[in-house]
Amino acid sequence: MEYKKVVVDGYGGDNAPLEVLKGIKKSLDEIHDLKVIITGKSEEVYNLILEKGLGLENYARLEIIDAPDIITNDESPTVAIKTKTESSLVKGFEYLKNNEDAIGLVSAGSTGAVLTGGFLKVGRIKGVSRPVLAPVLPTMKGTPVILADSGANMDCKPINLLHFALMASRYAENMFGVKNPRVALLSVGTEDHKGNDLVKKTFEYMKELPINFVGNMEARDLLSGDYDIVVADGFAGNVALKSCEGTLQTLLGILKSDIKSHTMSKIGYLFMKGTFKRLRKNFDYNQYGGSPFLGVNKIVVKCHGSSKAESFYQSIKQAYNLGQSNLIQSISSSVNGIDIKIEE
Amino acid sequence: MEYKKVVVDGYGGDNAPLEVLKGIKKSLDEIHDLKVIITGKSEEVYNLILEKGLGLENYARLEIIDAPDIITNDESPTVAIKTKTESSLVKGFEYLKNNEDAIGLVSAGSTGAVLTGGFLKVGRIKGVSRPVLAPVLPTMKGTPVILADSGANMDCKPINLLHFALMASRYAENMFGVKNPRVALLSVGTEDHKGNDLVKKTFEYMKELPINFVGNMEARDLLSGDYDIVVADGFAGNVALKSCEGTLQTLLGILKSDIKSHTMSKIGYLFMKGTFKRLRKNFDYNQYGGSPFLGVNKIVVKCHGSSKAESFYQSIKQAYNLGQSNLIQSISSSVNGIDIKIEE
Repeated sequence: MEYKKVVVDGYGGDNAPLEVLKGIKKSLDEIHDLKVIITGKSEEVYNLILEKGLGLENYARLEIIDAPDIITNDESPTVAIKTKTESSLVKGFEYLKNNEDAIGLVSAGSTGAVLTGGFLKVGRIKGVSRPVLAPVLPTMKGTPVILADSGANMDCKPINLLHFALMASRYAENMFGVKNPRVALLSVGTEDHKGNDLVKKTFEYMKELPINFVGNMEARDLLSGDYDIVVADGFAGNVALKSCEGTLQTLLGILKSDIKSHTMSKIGYLFMKGTFKRLRKNFDYNQYGGSPFLGVNKIVVKCHGSSKAESFYQSIKQAYNLGQSNLIQSISSSVNGIDIKIEE
Repeated sequence: MEYKKVVVDGYGGDNAPLEVLKGIKKSLDEIHDLKVIITGKSEEVYNLILEKGLGLENYARLEIIDAPDIITNDESPTVAIKTKTESSLVKGFEYLKNNEDAIGLVSAGSTGAVLTGGFLKVGRIKGVSRPVLAPVLPTMKGTPVILADSGANMDCKPINLLHFALMASRYAENMFGVKNPRVALLSVGTEDHKGNDLVKKTFEYMKELPINFVGNMEARDLLSGDYDIVVADGFAGNVALKSCEGTLQTLLGILKSDIKSHTMSKIGYLFMKGTFKRLRKNFDYNQYGGSPFLGVNKIVVKCHGSSKAESFYQSIKQAYNLGQSNLIQSISSSVNGIDIKIEE
C-alpha cells in the first residue's frame, strides 16, 4: 500500500505535543492510507505516548523525526526559519520539501514562522505574486466563508488581491465543492465606488477576472453567508477577523458573568444549555480545520495556536484531502491563465 | 436669558421626522437654556406635532426652518451638498455657519453628506490635516472607547493619524472627563514592529506626541476596555466597527432563532430576560450619543441612521455640552502645538 504522508509540527501551539498526538491518533485510526511524520523532541514524544497511554507506540504509520529546538511567537520569523535548523517547524518543512510523497504540513506554531517557512522552504507556485492565508469562518446560514487574506500580506497591490480571489476560488471548489463561488471585495459599503485607493483600483480589474465577482461588501456581512469568499489586504482582513473573534468573546464573557451574578438567569441557563452548546458549536472556528497557506508549492495548513486534538485531527484530514486534490495545479493554471494589464 | 442654539436636521435618518421631534422634546424639557432649530418640511413638521400630540406647538425654544428637499444615502455627498441648497442638511449647516450663537448641529442623515457638509460649510480648524469621525463604543468594563477614524478618511498618512490621536484625546477629556486617556494604534499585533507601512511609520511619530500612547493593539481588544482611544485609518477603522456590529447582530440573531425553535430554551429565556436586557443595554451604541466629527470649526454630531428619540436626545445634549466646552480651542492648540518633522 502506498501511503500519503502528512508532516505535523509536534511542538507548535499552546497544547503541544499532547493534543497534537491525540489528533494524530484520531487521524491515523480513521484514514488507513495516511502516514504521519511528527517532528519534535523524539524521546519526550515517545515517553508521552507511553505515559499517557495514547496507544501510538506500535503504529508503523507514525514516524518521529528528532528536532530538539522550538520556534516561539516572539522570534523574528525570517531569522528563526533561517537559523533554527533543528526546530520542529524547520525540520518539518525540510521533510516536506525533500520527500515527494509528503503531500502536506500542519502546524499550530507562530503564524509568521509558518508563512515564512512555507515561502522560503516550499516556495511559491510560479506566477503567484503573493501566497495568501485563507481561514474559513462559519456563517449565519451554516455555510463557510473564506477570508483571503487574513494577515500574510500587510501592504498589497491590486494584482495580489486578484490572485487571492483566484486562489480562494479554487480552494472553495476543491475543499467544499462550491460551484462558482461568490467572491466579494471587503470595503466600507456595497456600492461600486466605495473604498480606499486599493479597493477602488482592484474593483475595476476584478470585474475582468474569470470568477463569480459579486462586488463590494461591508465587514458587517462577513458572517452573513451571502458570500463564499471575501478578498482583502492582509491588514484589513486581519482586523475583520479579529474584530469578529473579539466581539464574540466579549459578548459571551458578559453573558457568563451576568448569569453568574443573577439567580433567575442561573436557572434560565439550565434550560438554555442546549442553545449555548449549539451556539458554541456553530461558531467553532476549528470545525473546518486550519487555515491553508495558498500559493505555495505544497499544502501548508496553519492551525490556531490554541488548537486541541479535534482541530489537529481536522487539519491533518484537510492536508490529506487537499494534498491529493487538484488544488496546486488548478491554482497554477488559474493564475497563469489570466491576461489583465495592471497599471501600478 | 441667553439661549444655546443647537441645529437639528429634521429629515435625516430612517425614523425622521417623528423620532427627531420626540428627541427634541425631551432635550428641551430637560435643558432650559437650550434652543433647537429644526430644518425640514415646515408644514409637515408642524402638522405632525399637532397630530401626534407632541406638545411642541407652543414652545418658544423651538424654531422650524423650512427646507423642502432631502439628501438621500444614494447621492454623491459632494454634489448633494453643493447643489441641494434647499435640503434640510444644507439649510442646517448654513444656519450653523451664519449664526454665532449656534453651537452645534445634529444629523442622522447620510454619513458622507454630513462629513462633506461639515468640511465644506463649517470648515476645518486651522492646522488640522483631516477631520475625523470618532464614534464611542461600549466596552466590557463599562467604560467607553473612542474609535478615530471610523470612516471619514479612506487613505491616510501618518500626520493624519497623529492628528486623530490628538483630537480624540481632547474629546475624551472634554466629553468624558478622562484624564490622560490611553491611546492605542490599531494593528495586527501588540508588538512594536507589527502592522502595515502606515502603522509602522505612524508608530514612531506617535511616541513623540504629548499623549498617553500605549502602543499597538489588536482588533480583538477593541471592546476590552483596556484603551480609551483607538486610532486607525478610516478604512481599517470602519472594518473594525462594522465587524463588531455584524458579529453582535449575527450572534443575537442565531440565539433568537434557536430559542424560538426549542421549547426548553424558550422557558429558559423567560428566566434570563434580565440578562438579555442588560446585555442589549450594555451594547447599545447610542448610549453615548452620536459620533462627533472632530476637527471642524463647530460641533457636528452624526447619529446612526436608525436612531430613535433617545439617541437624538443624547446627541442634542452632546452637542449642547461640547458646544460650550473648550473642545475646539483645545484641539486647535494641540494640533498647532506639536513640532514633529514627518517624512512623507
